[in-house]
Parts: sequence; structure tokens; C-alpha cells
Amino acid sequence: MPLISSYKEEKMDVFECIRNRYSYRGRYKNTPVPRQDLEKILKAGLAAPSACNKQTTSLIGLDDPALLASFTDLVKKNGFEGEKPPAGVCVLTRGILSYRDKPFYVQDYSAAIENMLLAITGLGYASCWIEGQVTENTETQEKFSRLLRLADDYIVVAFLPIGIPEIEAKHPTYKLFSERAWFN
Amino acid sequence: MPLISSYKEEKMDVFECIRNRYSYRGRYKNTPVPRQDLEKILKAGLAAPSACNKQTTSLIGLDDPALLASFTDLVKKNGFEGEKPPAGVCVLTRGILSYRDKPFYVQDYSAAIENMLLAITGLGYASCWIEGQVTENTETQEKFSRLLRLADDYIVVAFLPIGIPEIEAKHPTYKLFSERAWFN
Repeated sequence: MPLISSYKEEKMDVFECIRNRYSYRGRYKNTPVPRQDLEKILKAGLAAPSACNKQTTSLIGLDDPALLASFTDLVKKNGFEGEKPPAGVCVLTRGILSYRDKPFYVQDYSAAIENMLLAITGLGYASCWIEGQVTENTETQEKFSRLLRLADDYIVVAFLPIGIPEIEAKHPTYKLFSERAWFN
Repeated sequence: MPLISSYKEEKMDVFECIRNRYSYRGRYKNTPVPRQDLEKILKAGLAAPSACNKQTTSLIGLDDPALLASFTDLVKKNGFEGEKPPAGVCVLTRGILSYRDKPFYVQDYSAAIENMLLAITGLGYASCWIEGQVTENTETQEKFSRLLRLADDYIVVAFLPIGIPEIEAKHPTYKLFSERAWFN
């Protein structure tokens, strides 16, 4: 039924994606992530807004097994409990000032990461926003930079694994709507 | 054709939303935003990830004309070039430490804002991430807090107008994919 399958591929409801996204820390299947999917994910990230359109975020799509093994080792060493994925994204920023001498690059890359997490969910993969274990210490960041052969003005801020989850994971417990949202 | 319109309402492709989202600064139509839509937008924001699931972000949905006029005046006074919308969201955070004595609340509320901007786009409205003109000075933040009758541990960090755009707006110019993304 080609029509149905192409429909499925084309339409991934935004609210469904938002609800279904979760942080996955288990093993990934060996199924490779096609370059085409990786490119879609990167494009979703780059389409995020940035303060004064400074576009401070840059991205590196990863499908090289050696690089992915190194990055997974580095974040595991810093306490991340997760496994090597078949693909991933390294999120980079340049720590520049965007608006009236203030930096907004954290907001910029966070919006880009959220877009990518939704794109990853929409394509049927799982991921996890790994930031604390990347920026834990400058030593880790420098190792990332060296492996990625980055120019000095780029800083690695996050690593997103991408793959098909091997086990079913649960959403965390959320507070009630009435505890976090109000009207007027 | 009820089937088609209900289909349209139910399925809003996540990639289409990501591509279509843009920052709107023009006039809004007077068409009210139903509470049901506002609630969907708030729920999208609350479904965003947060470091260590600390859920540092809180939201206030706005459809009170007097409040919306006051907030629009405040951000216009600080340089925002935009008009009063029929609805909006105030984004609040509590500046707490999430992971190993580090704060991640900026990441948390940015992911929530991006989710809401996509939800707003998906429902056919326009918006703009207004942050610099809200956090410009503590005086503005305090005025927001007073109008919203906030407890002391909440900080207002952003204001998102919501409405149907009266004029057609353009996407800004983006750098080329090859200038911002690479593989391995």
C-alpha cells in the first residue's frame, strides 16, 4: 500500500511528536540511520529561531562509528548512563553577543536541539539531550573539539544520540498542568 | 467536507511546522484565540524536556485584553516593534540548580518556548519570541510580575504574543546549510 506508507512518512503530527518525545538512555538497534534522515534532522535544527537572527548554532551530523564510540565513552565517563548509537549530532555554538551586548546563544541552541528532538521522534528514532556530561569540564569539551577538528571559535555544548531504541522506555512523571500553568 | 477539515485539524506535519514557524511583528486580526487552543499551546510547552526533569518552567496563558495591552506596552517601550495580540503566553522560570550545582533553566524554558512556537504555528497562529525586551531591566520584569501577581520565586523571562496575522510576513534570510552543518 504505497499511498498509506508515503502518507505516514510525510505527515507526522506536531502535537503527537511533542507528546511522544522522551529521553532515551537504553541500547540502540544496529539499524543504520540514513544520511537523508540525518540531514532532515540537521535542517530541523537550523530552522530554529535565534536572537536577532544571528544563527549562532552549528551542527555536526555523525555516522562514523569510531567518532560515535569516542563521544559515547566521553559522556559515559562523566556519568551519562546510555549506549553507543548508530548516529548522532554534536551541537556547537559561538559564544557571541546577539542583542544589546547580551548573549542569547544558550536560547538559540536549545531551540535548535528541541527542533531536532522532535524531528528525531517524528522519524521514529529516539534520543536524549546530553549537555551536562559534555560541558562538565573543559577537558571533555576539548577532547570533543579535537576529535571534530573544530576551529577555536566553536564550542561543543551538547551531544544527541540517534537510533532506533532496543527497549521500550517510559516517560518520566510530570507535574499536573494546574501546578505549572495558569490563565491571566 | 467535514472529513478533510477534521483531518487538517488533527495532522499538522512536524517538519512543515518547523519550516513554517517565523517571527511575526505585525498587526493581529481581532479574532479571539479559544481557551482550548491556548491550553493546547501551554501543554505543548510543558511537554518539553528539562534537565533532570526538574520542570523549572511555568506558564501563564493570557487572553485578558487589559493584561495583553499592558505587556505589549511594556515590551514596545523597550524597543519591540510589534502589536497587541488577542492572546499570549508569559513564560516564567525559577532560577534553581538542576544538575551538579549548575543551572539549566535557560535551556528548559527555551525548549518549552520552541514547542509552543511550533504549536502556535500548527494551529494557524503567528508569534514572536520576545525575551530581550522583557529581561531588559529588572523594572520591566517587576512590572510584569506585579501585573501577574507572581510569588517571589518566579521570574518572567519571555512573552509570546498569539494571534492570526493581519499581514503576510517573510522569513528572514538564512545562511546556507553548508555554512552551518557538516558531517563527521
